[in-house]
Amino acid sequence: MKLATFFHGGTTRIGIVDGEEITDLSIAAPNLPREMMAFLEAGDAAMEAARQAATKGTHLSLSDVTLGPPVLKPRKVMAIGLNYADHVAESGQAAPAHQVWFSKAQTSIAGPHQEVLKPSVSDFLDYEAELCVVIGKRAKHVPKDQAHKVIAGYCCGNDVSVRDWQLRTPQFVLGKSFDTHAPIGPWITTHDEVGDPHTLDIKCFVNSEERQSSNTKHLIFDCYDQIAELSQAMTLEPGDVIFTGTPAGVGGAMDPMQFLKAGDVMRVEIEKLGAIENSVVDEQAEMLIQ
Amino acid sequence: MKLATFFHGGTTRIGIVDGEEITDLSIAAPNLPREMMAFLEAGDAAMEAARQAATKGTHLSLSDVTLGPPVLKPRKVMAIGLNYADHVAESGQAAPAHQVWFSKAQTSIAGPHQEVLKPSVSDFLDYEAELCVVIGKRAKHVPKDQAHKVIAGYCCGNDVSVRDWQLRTPQFVLGKSFDTHAPIGPWITTHDEVGDPHTLDIKCFVNSEERQSSNTKHLIFDCYDQIAELSQAMTLEPGDVIFTGTPAGVGGAMDPMQFLKAGDVMRVEIEKLGAIENSVVDEQAEMLIQ
Repeated sequence: MKLATFFHGGTTRIGIVDGEEITDLSIAAPNLPREMMAFLEAGDAAMEAARQAATKGTHLSLSDVTLGPPVLKPRKVMAIGLNYADHVAESGQAAPAHQVWFSKAQTSIAGPHQEVLKPSVSDFLDYEAELCVVIGKRAKHVPKDQAHKVIAGYCCGNDVSVRDWQLRTPQFVLGKSFDTHAPIGPWITTHDEVGDPHTLDIKCFVNSEERQSSNTKHLIFDCYDQIAELSQAMTLEPGDVIFTGTPAGVGGAMDPMQFLKAGDVMRVEIEKLGAIENSVVDEQAEMLIQ
Repeated sequence: MKLATFFHGGTTRIGIVDGEEITDLSIAAPNLPREMMAFLEAGDAAMEAARQAATKGTHLSLSDVTLGPPVLKPRKVMAIGLNYADHVAESGQAAPAHQVWFSKAQTSIAGPHQEVLKPSVSDFLDYEAELCVVIGKRAKHVPKDQAHKVIAGYCCGNDVSVRDWQLRTPQFVLGKSFDTHAPIGPWITTHDEVGDPHTLDIKCFVNSEERQSSNTKHLIFDCYDQIAELSQAMTLEPGDVIFTGTPAGVGGAMDPMQFLKAGDVMRVEIEKLGAIENSVVDEQAEMLIQ
């Protein structure tokens, strides 16, 4: 099943995507929560009710709606660094003994086709194609062999990075947390539909030029390792998003280095999950106090 | 004005503290939002209405209520490292040229008297007394001289840290994000009542022994610098919490090192803002999938 958040007729809804159509769950299953985080919190019963409802009428054409980030405001956006061997090598680092975690701010979340802002304060904007895990349960101290049970599903993510801000201190967080720098989508493909998440081709294109091409089988710490590690420290919650790492091919590691500029189009494609495509636009930097 | 979140009679409310009493805003001003983040979002008019309501009746004794974290689920918890010269020295680091930012997970937030969990996976639990800024406006690209306008107020915070997890990779986030490791409170003292936030004595005690004693005048990057820097990258939002750094005296820098154990009581006191006091208890590590 493919769970999407979409905007239509001035409202925000959730729905189930099938081919070129989307079933509006606010109509097909009006008793279900109408927001993705609340829907995921409602658990397996809600998931099953949605599955049943999807077979009933009231489809919209996907082309008539605007897809939003599947989770609009995740409570946590955690991201692992240096998690494909080839990206570790191009970064000039050693393979880490422990999982290297940072975070992205909630305000960095963006939709699958939303414009990504090139900050006024940097010319070192870069992309990172990543498989994202969306958490479906409250979970703590989950052993690796149980970790699949807490996953609602998967989506494409782009861990957009401002390299100078990321690297001018030892802590990545600020350079990873600019507004719009965590586009996700196009929808959550549920765990049962994906099956093994460690067999998926993953690619990133910039203006149709292939920049990254790998497979999630090359993850150093796989999705289940990551949930086991995180959940020793923190309670995972429905809607939390985990960026699972990027393979080789980022612009900052090219020779010569190539950073993003206004007009560039980034496309992240993952097998079974679809694609997200985000254009870069120059930020209009104005003071906001509201 | 002192704005608190409190639990009473099975419900969660917000109120205004005056001495040993608290005015229940859900009764004194029933039209105002009943949750702190929504209240802050309602802006200056709500703040003024609360101020007026506080002069009217229906006070509860502070001893009859349980104070919660003033903001229950901040959308962002940002924290700056190495921001007092004496703490930089005890950490064996050089003073940073740029602000060093990391984050704490929303699930690490705890109340001013809530028990702090000593993780089952570590014996290196440590305290860090910090002045916290609570944001009151949506804000971006705020210059330093305007930064005071986006601050709702201030509270005490304890940036509880799991030193081995913090330091075993280059990224601090995971070691700073364990459940209950961001106690804040006891309430938000509004910006107008505090005046200059850079003149406040700050102390931390463990079992009544003074471990940290400094003054916010020693911040390397002050509160306004921090808002200016963060808001170049991310939109700040009402209820966001900023941990502004800790002075010298953490347990990991003592000789010999002293880490926290079950039964220890940490107390963070800041001039004009009150105190938070949190006991350490051993976590009962059990798998949760819910």
